[in-house]
Amino acid sequence: MAPSWTIAPLYREASSRIQHRIDNKTKPLGALGRLEEVASQLALIQQCDHLAITQPTMLVFAADHGIASHGVSIAPSAVTRQMVLNFLTGGAAINCFCRANDMALQVVDAGILEPIDDERLIQQRLGAGTADISVAPAMSRQQAEMALQLGSALAKRLRSQGSNLLACGEMGIGNTSSAAALLAALCQLPVSDCVGRGTGIDDGQLQRKISLITQAVARTDSRDDPIALLAQLGGYEIAQITGAMLGAAEAGMTLLVDGFIVTAAALLATRINPVSREYMIFAHGSAEAAHGIMLAQLQARPLLDLGLRLGEGTGAALALPLLRAACCFYNEMASFDEAGVTV
Amino acid sequence: MAPSWTIAPLYREASSRIQHRIDNKTKPLGALGRLEEVASQLALIQQCDHLAITQPTMLVFAADHGIASHGVSIAPSAVTRQMVLNFLTGGAAINCFCRANDMALQVVDAGILEPIDDERLIQQRLGAGTADISVAPAMSRQQAEMALQLGSALAKRLRSQGSNLLACGEMGIGNTSSAAALLAALCQLPVSDCVGRGTGIDDGQLQRKISLITQAVARTDSRDDPIALLAQLGGYEIAQITGAMLGAAEAGMTLLVDGFIVTAAALLATRINPVSREYMIFAHGSAEAAHGIMLAQLQARPLLDLGLRLGEGTGAALALPLLRAACCFYNEMASFDEAGVTV
Repeated sequence: MAPSWTIAPLYREASSRIQHRIDNKTKPLGALGRLEEVASQLALIQQCDHLAITQPTMLVFAADHGIASHGVSIAPSAVTRQMVLNFLTGGAAINCFCRANDMALQVVDAGILEPIDDERLIQQRLGAGTADISVAPAMSRQQAEMALQLGSALAKRLRSQGSNLLACGEMGIGNTSSAAALLAALCQLPVSDCVGRGTGIDDGQLQRKISLITQAVARTDSRDDPIALLAQLGGYEIAQITGAMLGAAEAGMTLLVDGFIVTAAALLATRINPVSREYMIFAHGSAEAAHGIMLAQLQARPLLDLGLRLGEGTGAALALPLLRAACCFYNEMASFDEAGVTV
Repeated sequence: MAPSWTIAPLYREASSRIQHRIDNKTKPLGALGRLEEVASQLALIQQCDHLAITQPTMLVFAADHGIASHGVSIAPSAVTRQMVLNFLTGGAAINCFCRANDMALQVVDAGILEPIDDERLIQQRLGAGTADISVAPAMSRQQAEMALQLGSALAKRLRSQGSNLLACGEMGIGNTSSAAALLAALCQLPVSDCVGRGTGIDDGQLQRKISLITQAVARTDSRDDPIALLAQLGGYEIAQITGAMLGAAEAGMTLLVDGFIVTAAALLATRINPVSREYMIFAHGSAEAAHGIMLAQLQARPLLDLGLRLGEGTGAALALPLLRAACCFYNEMASFDEAGVTV
């Protein structure tokens, strides 16, 4: 039986009470802009009067991709493993941003080519990289379901340990191909609209990437079965991220979503269970052009636009302080009455 | 003699060495977008290999404005004082955001209508509100020079106490009128392009505001003498903020600039000493339309766009974590060599 998640819709009846509280803070109506939206959504998710972000956690999922053998990325697959080692020793951008913003970071091997024996790495390997999606399904349906369950269980474990906010990052040479393919297949869009230059490929590589992804998408015929599309188009990290988001939403956690690949997983999660969307806050609009299409599909407007195009979850780690600020004003800012302000 | 400031131009010869260091971090070239610009500017300002933001401080300057008697704001002048009390008791938005982001906050009375006897308030009063600029100069030239010096001395005191980053906020019912008038006069722009709805005035108030500011600007004839314009158009808080920026830049501090009124002071500071611009990082693009014109005049692109229209320095307090993140990646992120990544 396919895995499924029971996600509670937000209790929208509370919205007017929450808005009333925000509107009575000592500021002109609406003057805190997007932070008011964030506070309102957090209040709906957390269902209490004192908002808090506890043990916010970044899970970086790494995996390899058969399609990378075609040279659709600026780097070879070996770099996935090298970057995982970099994450483990604390030297990558996401390590810096998590440290700067007091966010826990855990790294998951969802299926890189060659395993790493390191107890700090969460071992959830589904194989040594996916198959080349231009010629075959990325993984079996059984693997896809297993990946969803592994991701989901990991998120729920974090919740049980006290975390109420999850962000996901990713590392996987070739994974923008799977993300673009999923976008094209899930939304029935032309592949050429969904494919970008990733971290910086040239025109020839871009044409090859489009042609390979077109072959992959042509093989799919199951737009109403998102898990079948996931199995066809990959990858292992996208599958586990999708599961983590569904599990986290089921557990009532806030999801802070960032990046082209992670947003593809978010799109997939909403196709598996549309209610998951209500738990998502979008962090950063990627410089990868098709990210804008994904965000429009999700009716999402990210908080930041800093021209990042790195992945790893970097945008989410950078947006976290805005969520903390939203909690702070919601909890602590005086009302007109309390402050004796007579506007 | 008019006050003046000796501000050291940034040592641009270091730029290529700084860029080389950033480009060798384990990420695709330019993949950290705006954060790379921030890191580069901070490295030029701080002139060292280990970047740090020490004791970042928000100075909120409050003052009243004679023009407010014409009802050009949604609130009466009494609200300036009420909000200063709110700042002192910790209940305003800027208090929340400074607490959330570990930023010191000090409040300065630059000339509100009725003094407040509270030792937490920095007393730098130049009067009980400025004159009504629609009919008379806001202040004398002597007051303007005194204001610049008071602001400058305060910033330098912070520097000597260990702070290396200054942001300014403001509170003053009517102060968008002075800011709009300064923009029109400094840049020779039509007043109607420079005036907005502040925190939310209606069409009739907007027309009155334009007409009053037009009278004020028509009286000025000294576009090459920014201090004369400041004396004509006010206000006390804008004058002290301008001085604080100049003093801070002279002391080598980074300036984090946010909001329509504070950006008007920044524009004025660059007219008094253009080198001050090199120390400024712009935090947030205000929903006040003419803010975009000011930013263009300063060739500035702010880091955040959250739809804030509150003032108080809120955008700067919210942007501070991005500067900390930039320092962190610049200091701690591994190079390709260090991480053994072979791209």
